[in-house]
Amino acid sequence: MVTYDGKHFHAERRMGLVSDTFTKTSVLGRLKGNSAIGHVRYSTTGGTLLRNVQPLFADLALGGFAIAHNGNLTNGLTIRLELVKEGAIFQSTSDTETILQLVAKSKKNLSIDRMVDALSQIEGAYALVAITNKQLIGVRDPYGIRPLVLGKLEGKYILCSETCALDIIGAKYIREVENGEVVIISDDGIESIKPFQKLKPRPCIFEYIYFSRPDSFLGGLSIYECRKSFGKQLAIESPMDADYVIPVPDSGVPSAIGYAEHSKIPFELGIIRNHYVGRTFIEPQQSIRALSVKLKHNVNRALIDGKKIILIDDSIVRGTTSTKIIEMLRDSGAREVHMRITSPPIKFPDFYGIDTPVQEQLLSAKHTIDEISKFLKADSISFLSINGLYKAMGYPEGRDPDNPAFTDHCFTGDYPTKLRDKESNEEFSQLSLLSNLE
Amino acid sequence: MVTYDGKHFHAERRMGLVSDTFTKTSVLGRLKGNSAIGHVRYSTTGGTLLRNVQPLFADLALGGFAIAHNGNLTNGLTIRLELVKEGAIFQSTSDTETILQLVAKSKKNLSIDRMVDALSQIEGAYALVAITNKQLIGVRDPYGIRPLVLGKLEGKYILCSETCALDIIGAKYIREVENGEVVIISDDGIESIKPFQKLKPRPCIFEYIYFSRPDSFLGGLSIYECRKSFGKQLAIESPMDADYVIPVPDSGVPSAIGYAEHSKIPFELGIIRNHYVGRTFIEPQQSIRALSVKLKHNVNRALIDGKKIILIDDSIVRGTTSTKIIEMLRDSGAREVHMRITSPPIKFPDFYGIDTPVQEQLLSAKHTIDEISKFLKADSISFLSINGLYKAMGYPEGRDPDNPAFTDHCFTGDYPTKLRDKESNEEFSQLSLLSNLE
Amino acid sequence: MVTYDGKHFHAERRMGLVSDTFTKTSVLGRLKGNSAIGHVRYSTTGGTLLRNVQPLFADLALGGFAIAHNGNLTNGLTIRLELVKEGAIFQSTSDTETILQLVAKSKKNLSIDRMVDALSQIEGAYALVAITNKQLIGVRDPYGIRPLVLGKLEGKYILCSETCALDIIGAKYIREVENGEVVIISDDGIESIKPFQKLKPRPCIFEYIYFSRPDSFLGGLSIYECRKSFGKQLAIESPMDADYVIPVPDSGVPSAIGYAEHSKIPFELGIIRNHYVGRTFIEPQQSIRALSVKLKHNVNRALIDGKKIILIDDSIVRGTTSTKIIEMLRDSGAREVHMRITSPPIKFPDFYGIDTPVQEQLLSAKHTIDEISKFLKADSISFLSINGLYKAMGYPEGRDPDNPAFTDHCFTGDYPTKLRDKESNEEFSQLSLLSNLE
Amino acid sequence: MVTYDGKHFHAERRMGLVSDTFTKTSVLGRLKGNSAIGHVRYSTTGGTLLRNVQPLFADLALGGFAIAHNGNLTNGLTIRLELVKEGAIFQSTSDTETILQLVAKSKKNLSIDRMVDALSQIEGAYALVAITNKQLIGVRDPYGIRPLVLGKLEGKYILCSETCALDIIGAKYIREVENGEVVIISDDGIESIKPFQKLKPRPCIFEYIYFSRPDSFLGGLSIYECRKSFGKQLAIESPMDADYVIPVPDSGVPSAIGYAEHSKIPFELGIIRNHYVGRTFIEPQQSIRALSVKLKHNVNRALIDGKKIILIDDSIVRGTTSTKIIEMLRDSGAREVHMRITSPPIKFPDFYGIDTPVQEQLLSAKHTIDEISKFLKADSISFLSINGLYKAMGYPEGRDPDNPAFTDHCFTGDYPTKLRDKESNEEFSQLSLLSNLE
Repeated sequence: MVTYDGKHFHAERRMGLVSDTFTKTSVLGRLKGNSAIGHVRYSTTGGTLLRNVQPLFADLALGGFAIAHNGNLTNGLTIRLELVKEGAIFQSTSDTETILQLVAKSKKNLSIDRMVDALSQIEGAYALVAITNKQLIGVRDPYGIRPLVLGKLEGKYILCSETCALDIIGAKYIREVENGEVVIISDDGIESIKPFQKLKPRPCIFEYIYFSRPDSFLGGLSIYECRKSFGKQLAIESPMDADYVIPVPDSGVPSAIGYAEHSKIPFELGIIRNHYVGRTFIEPQQSIRALSVKLKHNVNRALIDGKKIILIDDSIVRGTTSTKIIEMLRDSGAREVHMRITSPPIKFPDFYGIDTPVQEQLLSAKHTIDEISKFLKADSISFLSINGLYKAMGYPEGRDPDNPAFTDHCFTGDYPTKLRDKESNEEFSQLSLLSNLE
Repeated sequence: MVTYDGKHFHAERRMGLVSDTFTKTSVLGRLKGNSAIGHVRYSTTGGTLLRNVQPLFADLALGGFAIAHNGNLTNGLTIRLELVKEGAIFQSTSDTETILQLVAKSKKNLSIDRMVDALSQIEGAYALVAITNKQLIGVRDPYGIRPLVLGKLEGKYILCSETCALDIIGAKYIREVENGEVVIISDDGIESIKPFQKLKPRPCIFEYIYFSRPDSFLGGLSIYECRKSFGKQLAIESPMDADYVIPVPDSGVPSAIGYAEHSKIPFELGIIRNHYVGRTFIEPQQSIRALSVKLKHNVNRALIDGKKIILIDDSIVRGTTSTKIIEMLRDSGAREVHMRITSPPIKFPDFYGIDTPVQEQLLSAKHTIDEISKFLKADSISFLSINGLYKAMGYPEGRDPDNPAFTDHCFTGDYPTKLRDKESNEEFSQLSLLSNLE
Repeated sequence: MVTYDGKHFHAERRMGLVSDTFTKTSVLGRLKGNSAIGHVRYSTTGGTLLRNVQPLFADLALGGFAIAHNGNLTNGLTIRLELVKEGAIFQSTSDTETILQLVAKSKKNLSIDRMVDALSQIEGAYALVAITNKQLIGVRDPYGIRPLVLGKLEGKYILCSETCALDIIGAKYIREVENGEVVIISDDGIESIKPFQKLKPRPCIFEYIYFSRPDSFLGGLSIYECRKSFGKQLAIESPMDADYVIPVPDSGVPSAIGYAEHSKIPFELGIIRNHYVGRTFIEPQQSIRALSVKLKHNVNRALIDGKKIILIDDSIVRGTTSTKIIEMLRDSGAREVHMRITSPPIKFPDFYGIDTPVQEQLLSAKHTIDEISKFLKADSISFLSINGLYKAMGYPEGRDPDNPAFTDHCFTGDYPTKLRDKESNEEFSQLSLLSNLE
Repeated sequence: MVTYDGKHFHAERRMGLVSDTFTKTSVLGRLKGNSAIGHVRYSTTGGTLLRNVQPLFADLALGGFAIAHNGNLTNGLTIRLELVKEGAIFQSTSDTETILQLVAKSKKNLSIDRMVDALSQIEGAYALVAITNKQLIGVRDPYGIRPLVLGKLEGKYILCSETCALDIIGAKYIREVENGEVVIISDDGIESIKPFQKLKPRPCIFEYIYFSRPDSFLGGLSIYECRKSFGKQLAIESPMDADYVIPVPDSGVPSAIGYAEHSKIPFELGIIRNHYVGRTFIEPQQSIRALSVKLKHNVNRALIDGKKIILIDDSIVRGTTSTKIIEMLRDSGAREVHMRITSPPIKFPDFYGIDTPVQEQLLSAKHTIDEISKFLKADSISFLSINGLYKAMGYPEGRDPDNPAFTDHCFTGDYPTKLRDKESNEEFSQLSLLSNLE
């Protein structure tokens, strides 16, 4: 978090769980002020470093500036290399700092103009928040790929990624920040500008499938209801007689309820998730890693033994978890396991902030449905169709290929922005020579 | 954990999550040996101290002795006071140490005889494990109040509280340790003795209602199926027309599935649980504590608004959580909220290791059903009857008051053992004068 | 430290530097009360464990009891083994706990009587302090081997090992606790008893040679003046012409001033000590260990080059440090190095709390003066005679072999007490089977 | 420390003692490579932050660049403000980063040319070391105010501040880096350039008086011998009859030996320094702070009582320590205390890296000798004259005011460089708005 108290900015940036740091009165006492931004990121790779923890901060000539960013730039490294050639020193390897350096370099006089100047040079997906010594700023990229919503509590504005965050603190939901919109909150109230090229919104469809919490709303739709609809649509597209409909917990639960309701097959908790495995296991031995998967899920043996199962999950990436779960079900006596996936096959990698592997490791990129079923050792597998996905979300005609309503490139290969870093011939690896500085 | 390597014992005792300590190779590397015992305890009170962390260890004249214990003694303080008067020095405030001190004091020659000698002096509930330089020992109290099961992996015996632990490590379930049984595992195999007064088993009924994981078996019954049966029985006893059956997650989920199945009312996830609130929040401000409850549960507003709800939970202790959840449901637009509790009213405190408050704070101890309903601001409330509870577990005649099959004093006041500490006139508070030594 | 606030005892026991723990307001704030005892111990061996850190505490039937002890028992293990056989559980491997267990076991009614009862069973050297819920107690062993002094600050009594501790806090020196004396400080003032067999005092002569700070007094003598006298007496016994008298800092400085004054040879700081090497270096590589010695001492090359040196040190144990210092002096151009040691050769190990190695590793136990000189690569070496040592301390006749004034067994083999543990045939190694519990 | 392994740079930057971090094999194992630079700084002010810990590192377009710096720039803030206006983002508040940012901004192609380009823009005192992916670089400012020496070990070059560091690791002293010299060490050997305006050297005279260790050489002179000469010269200039010459340890010891030798008055250790007070005491209470001074020094009462003392110290800044020491001597019975300071009165603040207070707090800036003597409650006080200081260092004519051999502005007000930051009208306080980021 970074706060501003009218005179100084205060920062607390840590690795670890939010509840390990931001519940201590010693920490909260240091974070003085009446405006604040914060950022939480699930640590995915070995390159996790304290100096990459957001918000990033800079002492600019016009005052302090702190920024936090959800998403990923597609020309971030290209711009970074240009800036380094001109003499910029980057303190992190995060592409959020590219935005910050562009703000610092801008010749404009006002913070907000510098920010617009900086953002007009970048491409990609971003929902970002910033604080200066005058304003709290929220921006959503021209397509609105990543979400950003506006709420209000006791007369004060709040920006956050999901509506459930507003519920939790008892705040009122106002509206979403629109694609390409910049909102500026100050002592004078709230102001909105739209300085970028006007585009039709295309929010990321994975927010509905996997990312958002089921108790959130996005684009006017309940995430929980969408997922139930995915399950129902899948029951229509790929019906199957069975003893039970079983979700992979927790992400598959709403879809499984939808599938069960439509198919009249009983919904049961056949797999139990252990919620105490909150911490990432950091250990070298393969044997413990295998155990770690079992610690996360265990089969409810009393229920499964001798039964024909429809197993519901939201998506398949590499297929490793699905393989293990199907194996566990069979070891517990399942007679048949029919996998039903409530989204289409993932064939293309993401460059907008979703942690997908390279295309070679995407199970559906290189294999037919039959091959996938064999690989997973399932009795059958079906995916929801791309048109079924759009239908379940309220587009009765399905996906309009000329004008798709969502960012859905993982299924279609239709990327909304240029992918400049990817297409560049530059060698970006030299951009971080320092290997182990925290 | 304490391990034994044939020559030395090795111990690692820490506060915090298992995954913070017992995943580090530095820790696991220190824990050499081929027999081991361990203990995990949810820290409930301010008196949590490192020196109370189990297993406890002592260098006895006949060699090392480590012990870990699930349950609670009902004459532990009485005996402790006698031992202190004779010159014993206790290192902890745990009643497990009372057993250890009795073992140390015993005049018997063999470890196993010393252990039996010690246990014959104590009353209460215990499932315990111990290691000496020769044996791994498991004991269950004469009524079998707390659970203990025996498994096997790659030819080696395993003792644990629940069968799901065997599943997770891929071990085979053998049988339960019986009430009053002592099992002795050594290089020579396994041996069983029953040195105590023979009694009919009366396992704690709360293992079925709340404690055990749904994927475990206990006394030949699937916990998941028992809970579904509680829900079904409650649907029979207290039917109600409604839009949805909604569980308080996660403990109410299987019962709610049972209730929904029998009543044909749709099961829906109307309350979402946030699983990232794993750490206890340690902070002084009441405002943050209220937030902490909201962080744990949030209402799925899209579903609830305008609906008549049957809300399923497993039990009510003080009523504070239920009050808040009903309030959250109403704030999200619920038209009616009818609470259905899948166990009888808790009217009596526990002394066998369940963390219940004093009788004055038990909501059902002092109030009628109507008063409870008003207190919770529910439209109605029903509890499962004590006979319904027994019926759902396979006793068609209900509870036999002369010979009840379970330890169920929380509902009935029928405590299976004497409560000597409680009835004593002794002042036990002097037994721990040292307030802040770790 | 352990404190008592009239109701509870409070403890803080840590590894590390005093200034790392006992300067934090969070720690000092916890240590409430108006009586307190504390203990600091230089960690010498691998067996250093938090559970051995003093003061030790026990909840006895008559109330709390905390004890801290300087010295070593010579029958501690023998008694410990008897107690364990009777059922006592020891929490530490420290022999201080043997005293504590004897206090717990005593059948006497009063704390002070229990303490005398316990001490009358033990042999060895001890200066100890204890607090109960009524008293602060100080005891010195029958020979007064280890020191204990009494002071006063703002009307309150203070017990400590050295007079310089009183200076530092601005307290007034009252007197030494006498050999075999028990002082009892309470709200009623100070009381003194002498419950043990009356013996002539024999304080440890090493306090004068090495242990005590030069600004302390002991037995009416200034430590600084004693060391200057040792140097002067050595200049008389072993004169030598040279360019400079050089001390091994810091312990050799006062003796070197004395030697220089008597011999009229200039005193110079030829070896510089680096005071920033305060922390023990814990690392496995021999190369770094060698560096660690150099980090501690460096030769003042400008001074030494081409000169004939008299090198003064207080004692030689194994000879390793001396060897390195002489080598460093030669590498810096010293023409001749004549070593002068201001105590006699150490030929016998200590059992009263000085960390000496076994006899085999004592350089002087097995070698002649000539062999020692060769081993150290010195041009010559002389030790102060035993009679010279006594003369320098004010005994013009030298040592009286029938009635020596000091405990001086390291030089003479004349141990004042029985050495029961050493002579026992018992195998004590089994007394601590738990290897790595903190 | 930052190291370079031929491909990556590795860094370890920590607060605390060197021995707390750089003795751990886990740390040393991470610091791979065959060139390295390091930096240690005594933490003087509250603004101590991890992000200010040196060496600083940047990923430049031409590769990595790490730099560490001893000294202080006199136009660092002026340049920093210009750079920030142009869009530079500073990660620290250290003026070393100003040099790094100038290197990053330089249009030159080679690292070494960029460094020279950067340094030609700055003024002040600096001895600095840097590593790139090709070279180890050492630079000393045009006046050579701060020291830098060159050594060799096993064929490899070493740069360090003092010659004693070479002794400690067994390296050979080669020569000093000259004022205004840049040395470039690479696989091709060592190269030297002198790219700046040629000036006569003026090393800081405080290295001789206080900073350097007595076992170091600087400018061909032994620090120990210089200090003895200061004492001798002071005995000539300000003779006094007395019982003892007593140093304030440890810095006053060599001067006191010199004073004693010349005056024939016995040298004695009348004040004992406690070397275990290595850690800074961080606590709020004034009472503990007062104690902390006593913990550092204690009077050797046996010696002092009734005596007339000459007390030797190297310098007086605010006078607080001297006041307390004189008070302690009187409390211990000193009959007279005559203070002799082996340098002239400090009348002007330093801007080249010595931690002096503002001029108002310099005791000698505003008071006469008599006033100082009264303030300190000394019987008399004398300072060494400025000409006496030069004479003692081998300039028989004393200081040449037109061409002084040393940087001696603290005594004379003669600053060798411009003081641009000090004379600027700019408000620099805005340059660090972020108050508590580590």
